[in-house]
Amino acid sequence: MPRILLTVSYDGTAYSGWQRQINGESIQACLEDALSRATGETIRVTGASRTDAGVHALGQKCHFDTLSRIPADKFPFVLQPLLPPDIRVTQGMAVADGFHARFLSCRKKYTYRFLNCRFPDAMHRLYHLHVPRKLQDTEMTRALADLLGTHDFAAFQAAGGTAKSTVRTIYRADLTRDGDCLTLFLEGNAFLYNMVRIIAGTLVEIGEGRRSPEAFREALETGSRLALGPTAPPHGLELTDVLYPPDAYLHPEFHRWHEEAEESLK
Amino acid sequence: MPRILLTVSYDGTAYSGWQRQINGESIQACLEDALSRATGETIRVTGASRTDAGVHALGQKCHFDTLSRIPADKFPFVLQPLLPPDIRVTQGMAVADGFHARFLSCRKKYTYRFLNCRFPDAMHRLYHLHVPRKLQDTEMTRALADLLGTHDFAAFQAAGGTAKSTVRTIYRADLTRDGDCLTLFLEGNAFLYNMVRIIAGTLVEIGEGRRSPEAFREALETGSRLALGPTAPPHGLELTDVLYPPDAYLHPEFHRWHEEAEESLK
Repeated sequence: MPRILLTVSYDGTAYSGWQRQINGESIQACLEDALSRATGETIRVTGASRTDAGVHALGQKCHFDTLSRIPADKFPFVLQPLLPPDIRVTQGMAVADGFHARFLSCRKKYTYRFLNCRFPDAMHRLYHLHVPRKLQDTEMTRALADLLGTHDFAAFQAAGGTAKSTVRTIYRADLTRDGDCLTLFLEGNAFLYNMVRIIAGTLVEIGEGRRSPEAFREALETGSRLALGPTAPPHGLELTDVLYPPDAYLHPEFHRWHEEAEESLK
Repeated sequence: MPRILLTVSYDGTAYSGWQRQINGESIQACLEDALSRATGETIRVTGASRTDAGVHALGQKCHFDTLSRIPADKFPFVLQPLLPPDIRVTQGMAVADGFHARFLSCRKKYTYRFLNCRFPDAMHRLYHLHVPRKLQDTEMTRALADLLGTHDFAAFQAAGGTAKSTVRTIYRADLTRDGDCLTLFLEGNAFLYNMVRIIAGTLVEIGEGRRSPEAFREALETGSRLALGPTAPPHGLELTDVLYPPDAYLHPEFHRWHEEAEESLK
């Protein structure tokens, strides 16, 4: 059965997380309902990442199988009226049968946003963590450098993580400031459960001067969760992108689609 | 009676606009209710700008009179639990009796945001106008230059405007792009009714190549509303700041407050 890969964006504020569950509305359930209505089949989707309650996404990915004749690239159009406005499908493409949104992902990008001012305004409340104390960007940036490369991140996971190995590679870890807004950007081959939010929570303490900029290095060396700060709240976090290797798992259509998408914006 | 000036930020999505009215919830009414509860008096506020339904604000200003002993700079704290999360007071300061939030404002800053990509994501839906066709920034920037300076903006107002003179001075009009996001920034001594949204709507047509980059100049010369594009929707618009001359109307406390605010963030 043909397999389709979707890119999904959502505002996680109103949801109990990605994964379908008995209590609370999930992104997955909304998406499956919309896809089932669009195709007339019973659709089940497999997401790249099970984002927690309140976490947002700009580029979550998921795949599903369908016999529908809807062309893959038309799913954003078709699903628009069937989804609530806080869930949007922004891309659709045909992939090979063996493609898997979760197991084949080779890189993930996350963004965590802070609003650093005394009194928070109303317009940043949904996607930024308000931090009233002045954050020292330079200390934070110095600390982030210790995360780069391949390390055992055993200290950087919350209870409930199921990863067999805790070795991960971080390719990018940086912080930018634009006025009162600070943006943490992380890119790695994969992340442990709550890893980005633990990094964000620790970073706040480092920026406030309440924790040493050596904290990340210490945690990597000792493997101790105690070397790190609290898990930051979910609303500052966004799953920004999920990448796959451009190899045999992808349908030949992928390359054509990619070119067309770029062409359409010229 | 002592007069206090507040800076107010709001997400206008859920409101019928700034001004108190019979149908629909207004920002003004929410603020007056919260202030009345905080002070035990019946408070009426006077806003700098009557923003329309759906328009946001980062730095709306309003003044009110009170005999309350709450120090002016404590109002952001005091009002926080009394206001819904989409309305935040970010500053409070004592001003002279003769101060007036609306009549004394000497500059206003507005921001209008566009999301320029084929399929909109969920995270920009509240504060950005989605424009699917590729916008030509250079044409738009060229057009904006014609707005700078003092002109008769008679063509740039919607029916319902009550201004006696339509002469305004624009100090800044520029556009920046960050990936798919375009931000229009306008600063002027004052703006006519719907002026910013008419500029934004015209700018989209210029960027799409459907209207000449000479449109603004033509409208200034002819005074004809027909030379301009449609009024852009409210949700892309933010009242960013309102400025006052630092003269006698301001309470001496103003200067001390200003220094303290800067000090507190060091």
